[in-house]
Amino acid sequence: MTPAHGISLDPWFDHYADRSSGLSASEVRSLFAVASRPEVVSLAGGMPYVRAIPDEMMKQTLNRVIDERGAEALQYGSGQGHPELREQIVDIMALEGISARPDDVVVTTGSQHGLDLIARLFINPGDVVIAEAPSYVGAMGVFRSYEADVRHVEMDADGIIPEALSEAISQARSEGKPIKMIYLIPNFHNPAGVTLSASRRLEVLDIAQQENILVVEDNPYGLLWFDQPAPPAMRAAGDHGVIYLGSFSKTFGPGLRVGWVVAPHGIREKLVLASEAAVLSPSSFSQLVVADYFQRSDWKGQIDTFRGIYQERRDAMVKALAHELPTIEHTKPSGGFYLWLTLPDGLNSKEMLPRAVTELVAYTPGTAFFADHRGTQNMRLAFCYPTPEDITEGISRLAKVIREEIELIETFEPARNKQVRDSHVESPPPNLT
Amino acid sequence: MTPAHGISLDPWFDHYADRSSGLSASEVRSLFAVASRPEVVSLAGGMPYVRAIPDEMMKQTLNRVIDERGAEALQYGSGQGHPELREQIVDIMALEGISARPDDVVVTTGSQHGLDLIARLFINPGDVVIAEAPSYVGAMGVFRSYEADVRHVEMDADGIIPEALSEAISQARSEGKPIKMIYLIPNFHNPAGVTLSASRRLEVLDIAQQENILVVEDNPYGLLWFDQPAPPAMRAAGDHGVIYLGSFSKTFGPGLRVGWVVAPHGIREKLVLASEAAVLSPSSFSQLVVADYFQRSDWKGQIDTFRGIYQERRDAMVKALAHELPTIEHTKPSGGFYLWLTLPDGLNSKEMLPRAVTELVAYTPGTAFFADHRGTQNMRLAFCYPTPEDITEGISRLAKVIREEIELIETFEPARNKQVRDSHVESPPPNLT
Repeated sequence: MTPAHGISLDPWFDHYADRSSGLSASEVRSLFAVASRPEVVSLAGGMPYVRAIPDEMMKQTLNRVIDERGAEALQYGSGQGHPELREQIVDIMALEGISARPDDVVVTTGSQHGLDLIARLFINPGDVVIAEAPSYVGAMGVFRSYEADVRHVEMDADGIIPEALSEAISQARSEGKPIKMIYLIPNFHNPAGVTLSASRRLEVLDIAQQENILVVEDNPYGLLWFDQPAPPAMRAAGDHGVIYLGSFSKTFGPGLRVGWVVAPHGIREKLVLASEAAVLSPSSFSQLVVADYFQRSDWKGQIDTFRGIYQERRDAMVKALAHELPTIEHTKPSGGFYLWLTLPDGLNSKEMLPRAVTELVAYTPGTAFFADHRGTQNMRLAFCYPTPEDITEGISRLAKVIREEIELIETFEPARNKQVRDSHVESPPPNLT
Repeated sequence: MTPAHGISLDPWFDHYADRSSGLSASEVRSLFAVASRPEVVSLAGGMPYVRAIPDEMMKQTLNRVIDERGAEALQYGSGQGHPELREQIVDIMALEGISARPDDVVVTTGSQHGLDLIARLFINPGDVVIAEAPSYVGAMGVFRSYEADVRHVEMDADGIIPEALSEAISQARSEGKPIKMIYLIPNFHNPAGVTLSASRRLEVLDIAQQENILVVEDNPYGLLWFDQPAPPAMRAAGDHGVIYLGSFSKTFGPGLRVGWVVAPHGIREKLVLASEAAVLSPSSFSQLVVADYFQRSDWKGQIDTFRGIYQERRDAMVKALAHELPTIEHTKPSGGFYLWLTLPDGLNSKEMLPRAVTELVAYTPGTAFFADHRGTQNMRLAFCYPTPEDITEGISRLAKVIREEIELIETFEPARNKQVRDSHVESPPPNLT
């Protein structure tokens, strides 16, 4: 059913399931090859700076796991996840105001797999999923792979706009379409870099409850705040109607692939069954390593270290942007990994990318974060991985490319404007500043 | 859509996707709680004997991984899997006659996830999957979760019967149903304990090719032979039309969750996309641990050790059965973990299980290995985990239960026979001996 992606010679092309037509290469992941060349300053990928985890501490953790329960680490585990780790997860979530029991938690192979299992559980082809505009590229991939109809709702500097959310719900209802969930990243949004305000969290929960729609709260960055902690998690307001996704990828390391889901009882039971069908059980080895780390190491101190590193890098990026591109609009993240930049009219971030890479800087074009081809005038800049010096250099290179593009437009204005009109802009680009 | 499994109070019960109705608790996994009590001899679970992996070797491996590439181990990796590990996988598969390139390999979160991704890629609701009778319980769970129509094909001591395969294909074709794959475990079958003969491998491949149906070859046990190596893998006969599933769960440890898929080019590309949507990338940490282990340790010697251990346990089980239950039919596995036992007429393995557990022995009822309620007269006995002494004791306990059941039937024959007629036997139980 899917002759796309250069597989027209695939002799099995007529054997695939309908849902496989939703699979396509992520624009972010296809950048990895380019961006990993050492001479390129990559502001593209969202790789945490795991070098900040001391090798010596890792070795102590690993040796303890083998000494104390090596056979358990190498063996199959329970589908729901290790009970000890689930207890620690409950303690970690308490930092964000969440009251839950270990039995409410399902450990997953990264929170990405949690999201995949939730989508698998709820989404029939054509069902509506409401997401922010823009939204996480990996979530767009999951929803596409289950043939969801993703509707984006506008954000501003305080996150998703409740009135716009209500409108999107009314619109889908008037079309007679089932709305299965509202997918949100309330803290230090990927890619937008904004945080949903405390009052709006309650407004959104009210709307969701009145409309009987599940809220999926994806919170990988919550503990990585710079200026002040984020408001309490949406799940903190109550245990019904919110599925919470957590991750150790940003507080420890994504290479371990350990995340978790907290869900209302009936959903949680089905999640465990879905997870068992998909992977039998999450990795015992990774779970025991994470459990030992959070039990025996100074993990709160380590998170402070991460916060300091990322804050310094955010500062470097904001300062460089102010210096190099003072008139360009962008968000001012107070935590997390990302900043969202809006190009001047007439510029297209995807078309500009090859020229940026020629100048040895990479970013992620805004279109990656929409299900509907918007975002041509936006880009995501990640400050998590490069050093402050590299960030400064990278923004300088990027500024050169943008300035040259602007000059080009000013020189060849009529032709360029036609080109912009012909591209896939279906609605004005979001302005989150 | 799914009010089953005691979740009738779930307020979200009408929000689930249709496919979620295929989720149900595996009979094998629900046994784990019971069978893990130390006084019970469990012949139920298929846990490899990972204590045979020396702690000191594990610690050396882990410390090397951190010393040499700790940051890489903690970081996101590529969706297809680490290139070095894929090279080693190619070398391992060469032992079973397979010629492949590292680029043909996709590393997965255990081979279970490989199977899940294949099903996701190919199965529309109602599509036919052909499987052996009986088949792997975890595969039944995956196929059910994608709403496949599983058709079992009879086996004998040489594996699946080609004539019966052709009949099943004709039957499904006459119903106008798409047949998406033939799912097989050719070596040391789970649960049947038989091995597909070399000549039948070619016959089955011929049938599949003529009918234009994919063969999915699941081979977790291939290297764990006792008496002589298994015939060459089906994938060894050619690179088209066979998707091969491999696993490190039985040659190293399932707690790491590392398996792999080898697939024809177009399918492989889609598998990578499906894997990225589901988990972003398999665990870098686990992959580097496995890569270091297979590069620097005596892994062939370790497999010899495993073979010796499992052969001794198989011998203990076969000997105990000959001694305790000389007239009972069972398969004689020449490798792997399992033996398939057929109870005398009138006995029901599922109904008998609580009595067996009371006698402190556990097994897996045959019904777990069928999509169609067959197998009531069968059980799977696993000899992989308990010591030879425990196996002997366990079979002695099991024999007591079976003898008592037979006595009961002989005493109350008319009533028992009615009960058997009322149960879900839809066709005679397979006889693989």
